[in-house]
Amino acid sequence: MSELPPATVSLVPEDQASQRVAKIFADIRQTKEIDFVPNFWKTLATEPELLESVWKHLKKWMHPEATGRASRLDAKTREIIALAVSATNACPYCTNSHTAALVKLGVDPETLGEVMAIVGLFNQTNALANGYQIQPDVFPSSIEQA
Amino acid sequence: MSELPPATVSLVPEDQASQRVAKIFADIRQTKEIDFVPNFWKTLATEPELLESVWKHLKKWMHPEATGRASRLDAKTREIIALAVSATNACPYCTNSHTAALVKLGVDPETLGEVMAIVGLFNQTNALANGYQIQPDVFPSSIEQA
Amino acid sequence: MSELPPATVSLVPEDQASQRVAKIFADIRQTKEIDFVPNFWKTLATEPELLESVWKHLKKWMHPEATGRASRLDAKTREIIALAVSATNACPYCTNSHTAALVKLGVDPETLGEVMAIVGLFNQTNALANGYQIQPDVFPSSIEQA
Amino acid sequence: MSELPPATVSLVPEDQASQRVAKIFADIRQTKEIDFVPNFWKTLATEPELLESVWKHLKKWMHPEATGRASRLDAKTREIIALAVSATNACPYCTNSHTAALVKLGVDPETLGEVMAIVGLFNQTNALANGYQIQPDVFPSSIEQA
Amino acid sequence: MSELPPATVSLVPEDQASQRVAKIFADIRQTKEIDFVPNFWKTLATEPELLESVWKHLKKWMHPEATGRASRLDAKTREIIALAVSATNACPYCTNSHTAALVKLGVDPETLGEVMAIVGLFNQTNALANGYQIQPDVFPSSIEQA
Amino acid sequence: MSELPPATVSLVPEDQASQRVAKIFADIRQTKEIDFVPNFWKTLATEPELLESVWKHLKKWMHPEATGRASRLDAKTREIIALAVSATNACPYCTNSHTAALVKLGVDPETLGEVMAIVGLFNQTNALANGYQIQPDVFPSSIEQA
Repeated sequence: MSELPPATVSLVPEDQASQRVAKIFADIRQTKEIDFVPNFWKTLATEPELLESVWKHLKKWMHPEATGRASRLDAKTREIIALAVSATNACPYCTNSHTAALVKLGVDPETLGEVMAIVGLFNQTNALANGYQIQPDVFPSSIEQA
Repeated sequence: MSELPPATVSLVPEDQASQRVAKIFADIRQTKEIDFVPNFWKTLATEPELLESVWKHLKKWMHPEATGRASRLDAKTREIIALAVSATNACPYCTNSHTAALVKLGVDPETLGEVMAIVGLFNQTNALANGYQIQPDVFPSSIEQA
Repeated sequence: MSELPPATVSLVPEDQASQRVAKIFADIRQTKEIDFVPNFWKTLATEPELLESVWKHLKKWMHPEATGRASRLDAKTREIIALAVSATNACPYCTNSHTAALVKLGVDPETLGEVMAIVGLFNQTNALANGYQIQPDVFPSSIEQA
Repeated sequence: MSELPPATVSLVPEDQASQRVAKIFADIRQTKEIDFVPNFWKTLATEPELLESVWKHLKKWMHPEATGRASRLDAKTREIIALAVSATNACPYCTNSHTAALVKLGVDPETLGEVMAIVGLFNQTNALANGYQIQPDVFPSSIEQA
Repeated sequence: MSELPPATVSLVPEDQASQRVAKIFADIRQTKEIDFVPNFWKTLATEPELLESVWKHLKKWMHPEATGRASRLDAKTREIIALAVSATNACPYCTNSHTAALVKLGVDPETLGEVMAIVGLFNQTNALANGYQIQPDVFPSSIEQA
Repeated sequence: MSELPPATVSLVPEDQASQRVAKIFADIRQTKEIDFVPNFWKTLATEPELLESVWKHLKKWMHPEATGRASRLDAKTREIIALAVSATNACPYCTNSHTAALVKLGVDPETLGEVMAIVGLFNQTNALANGYQIQPDVFPSSIEQA
């Protein structure tokens, strides 16, 4: 047996960040109200343009209060979407981090279980619908489109 | 150019359903408050055991009020999870049907856009976290687990 | 380097299971003829409804002899499907557990290699067919549908 | 509404195939005992090296009798793996073609339904195992590895 | 048989775009040097924030010359990555559009075939490496990380 | 916490390889200019037919100079495709090995970051296009097909 391999690039430690990167790290800590910079962001910092571009995008959609945008979904729903996508895509890092975020928001194991039940259910029905190549239903036009 | 191919099996029309299948079709219509049987269920009806087993499972988790179970998530959140999974898995039938369900629940294009923005965002970060093989953060034990 | 992170929830140990959960754990041990409860089920036990619903479903399709249903596929074929899906979806837990199940059923490394060869082959052709957006062939109607 | 788009390249019609391609087309017809060349192969023929390399590979693993290799799996099991992978990957072309192949081998809708039930089931459990980041069980060493 | 279903929302036609949306549509036409607005952007326009945020992100990474950023990859390599990801994810819209972009850049069917061969190959080896749960190699530290 | 589980089969050590396997191992070392046999190939060696068939295929497309074929893509572009596919498919082994290959070819963290940015971007747009079921654009026929 061997241990987990490291990320494929060397993370940028907080105390070795350039001024540009340090400013983004500080914004991450403050916006997310956490006292460390997650490995995800320390990894993206190896290409500061990437760090900036992904952080700006994630901040916009996941921390609307910090950008003055009114969100139509609450924080818990947004994290539930994040977990549903991450579980479906088999992303260990993301699954861990979004589960931790949900726990921090007060989600208990039973509620998490219900989220997982629904995520599991639709991975099942997706495989059935694709496996049988089922054609879309024709809906009455009034509810056909958003 | 050619037209869409049919499902890979012949659907069971409502008027040719066996008694066992007809009973499930009726339950689907009533539980979902719709006046037709979606192609998904008419396809699964080619193997009645499969129809029964998937319907029982979906009814339990998506229509808790019909089975007397108290759900910790509301109907809109449950359909949002369904759409997030279906978009991630590339399932045309499912994407169409869960979008229609959300529209029926009153979701407008802007809210749908926000759901999609978040679904897109985490498909992006999942690829980044997996592409860099980023290691999970070590959280303080109190928030580590649900 | 760091070690493997734990599951995102605390597993339910066998000696701390509620009566409801303990009964399902016992059924799992007996039906699967194993002398321990796999981590998968100890995790689902954090939400007993989820444990019950997934176990009932898996028991039905993977252990038909225990539910009095006649299966049209043998046990080895069923486990081969499980492994093919798990390898395609990148699920480490599932890949390990279904490989172990196949080994227990007497599958040797050469046969496992042939299964993997075919799983790999169709992941390749799927990418080619989707990458070129190849249109379905029009078959003579007699073999078009099951 | 619009019609299905064509493949992203122009297929090579049988009567315009180069000698090299025509020889492979003939081998496909004969090995598969069909009287047409499927769109998949007419598409790959746009790059003859690709056609040759994929056909050689597929012939080896899916038509062992034509290459003198003894297979440890029967033709039906091999096609079931192909369908399980294609349904999981959301490949319309492949799903259609492998379902047709199974029908040709005598598989009825009920058996197809059982295959789909198992494919759906493991897409579900894969999402659960990945969504909870469940750690592999430690098996007794004798059954740990093939 | 039935026709292709429409997108799940009503596209925003160019002549009905709000001023904010029209400005982005104009930028898309100009930056991409095309004389129409692709369906992708007319769909995202149903939620202008989403349109703006995705366009800004895509413009940055795919049209660096328009934003004054020096790219380390050429336009053809960038589109090849787009096609490789889209083929792997089974995205019909994206596969069509990135293939068209490559054709516009002068890529011929043989080169496209080579790209596809490599995309197919690694979908195959990914399934093999995941299906066998192969552990990462330990590289000499000098080449271990970027 | 526990350690990484081993591969699901026992690797074939270099000094225990049969003559047939040893010959392929030698070709891998020489063609790839490395002084060890990667775990991937030592795993496939458990079924020599699989080892031979996958190696022949990979050698053809990734090491064209060794087979006398002229490639239309350079080595860096080929490895970039490999990484893009592996990141999208969530394959830890493959991601590690293709990142190492790119580093060996002189790719620096900033260039790797740009590759990842584009891989992430199209995983995002794929989810959007599939999630909205966007219909392909109709291109002028001259650029429609390769």
